[in-house]
Amino acid sequence: MPAMPSASVWPARLENPEASGRMIFVCEHASNAFPMPFGSLGLSPAQQSAHIAWDPGAIGLARGLARLLDGVVIAGQVSRLVYDCNRPPDSPGAMVARSELHDIPGNAGLTDAARLARVRAVYEPFHASLRADILRRMTLDQRPVIVTVHSFTPVYNHQNRTVQFGVIHDADPGLALAVMQAAARLPLTARLNEPYSAADHVTHTLRLHATPYGLPNVMLEVRSDLIATSEGEQSMAAMLAPVLAEALAAYEQHSGADAPRITKTG
Amino acid sequence: MPAMPSASVWPARLENPEASGRMIFVCEHASNAFPMPFGSLGLSPAQQSAHIAWDPGAIGLARGLARLLDGVVIAGQVSRLVYDCNRPPDSPGAMVARSELHDIPGNAGLTDAARLARVRAVYEPFHASLRADILRRMTLDQRPVIVTVHSFTPVYNHQNRTVQFGVIHDADPGLALAVMQAAARLPLTARLNEPYSAADHVTHTLRLHATPYGLPNVMLEVRSDLIATSEGEQSMAAMLAPVLAEALAAYEQHSGADAPRITKTG
Repeated sequence: MPAMPSASVWPARLENPEASGRMIFVCEHASNAFPMPFGSLGLSPAQQSAHIAWDPGAIGLARGLARLLDGVVIAGQVSRLVYDCNRPPDSPGAMVARSELHDIPGNAGLTDAARLARVRAVYEPFHASLRADILRRMTLDQRPVIVTVHSFTPVYNHQNRTVQFGVIHDADPGLALAVMQAAARLPLTARLNEPYSAADHVTHTLRLHATPYGLPNVMLEVRSDLIATSEGEQSMAAMLAPVLAEALAAYEQHSGADAPRITKTG
Repeated sequence: MPAMPSASVWPARLENPEASGRMIFVCEHASNAFPMPFGSLGLSPAQQSAHIAWDPGAIGLARGLARLLDGVVIAGQVSRLVYDCNRPPDSPGAMVARSELHDIPGNAGLTDAARLARVRAVYEPFHASLRADILRRMTLDQRPVIVTVHSFTPVYNHQNRTVQFGVIHDADPGLALAVMQAAARLPLTARLNEPYSAADHVTHTLRLHATPYGLPNVMLEVRSDLIATSEGEQSMAAMLAPVLAEALAAYEQHSGADAPRITKTG
């Protein structure tokens, strides 16, 4: 891999930055772009558009939710196979050489320099974009709510998946439990911490941005066959938006006022 | 307060960046500088050099530890009264209008714009400097160890403090407990989670940089009368360096190999 020009960085795309709502919809796997200098990583066009490269439908769903709830969208602009922004730099999942049934030739035997270049070009700028928006809203006392939006494939490693809507939490299960409760009325098979959970290292973004600041947070996983078309995305957004609004209200009612803060200066 | 020129940012000072050791000594309160455009905040020279403005002795101790253990030093370059980098932007402790017995006139009634300018000028650049070093070392599989270094005043709110060496942990108590055990042989009154603990919001840096990545971490608090001179700083560093080295070795032996990692791509 050639040395990367320092100007080639891929921050997240920030949509609806002036949103009056508190929810930030984060889509780490929004894109299946393979820009230079990374290129195709040796993958066929079919592989580049498959679920191993991104979460199909996730960005459409996130945009639908943001429109209905007047929230922000933060979207990755590079395929997760270049760097998976929902993984820390020392994770084998950050730049995988094999994904499900596919080898990723351009990720085999990456040098330290190549790995570091991707961390600096993709991971750091993505999270810096998200962080700047969170910190601005926190400073203005808007207490943002972090909602990561993902899709999963209906068949994985030759296994069919029956769950349709997964609700996943990190250290604080509060908002996830409230979403599960509000989602009970939906015509969807909803499950807590399925098809993945924090033990699968899928809550990295929540752990990095929400947990340290005590911000309400939840990860949503929707089966991709339900959001395979623009109509599917919008219909899912229309179902989930009121569920999220109701869940946040219930969560905040239960969690009550903030604990008293102590100012240490000695 | 005048609008801040965008070039006026205060990243942390990074010392010994090529260190071969794994410890990063973080000194959020290293400096009692009051640079423009903030200025003195209406404080007298005596107030500007008192413990409310910084942690006297902490940077000297951190440098001594870094020299003995070949570690990195990350040091704030602005008084904690301008912005306390060990506090999140929505904390009342971030830009205090009163500290111990002192009013801070320049922090009274800060506008949203002024608070946001300080977050962007001081808090974000400080943590970005620290983060870049951590991520680089993680990418190169060096698994850094985060050690924050603080001092506390012997008399606080008219009360004498008998503790001399405080060892404080965030979510993972492992390294702190190992430090306590190794410190038992020292001629120091050492206490766990004194004079402060995570409940006092003093582990923000650990929570932001170590806990999400599962990195070993601990906060050290030394009573400032013991490190009031350069000789005191060096003698304390000489006592604590072998304790930290022994504690890290014991901690890593107990925590064993990393948990297996799962690569989610579906």
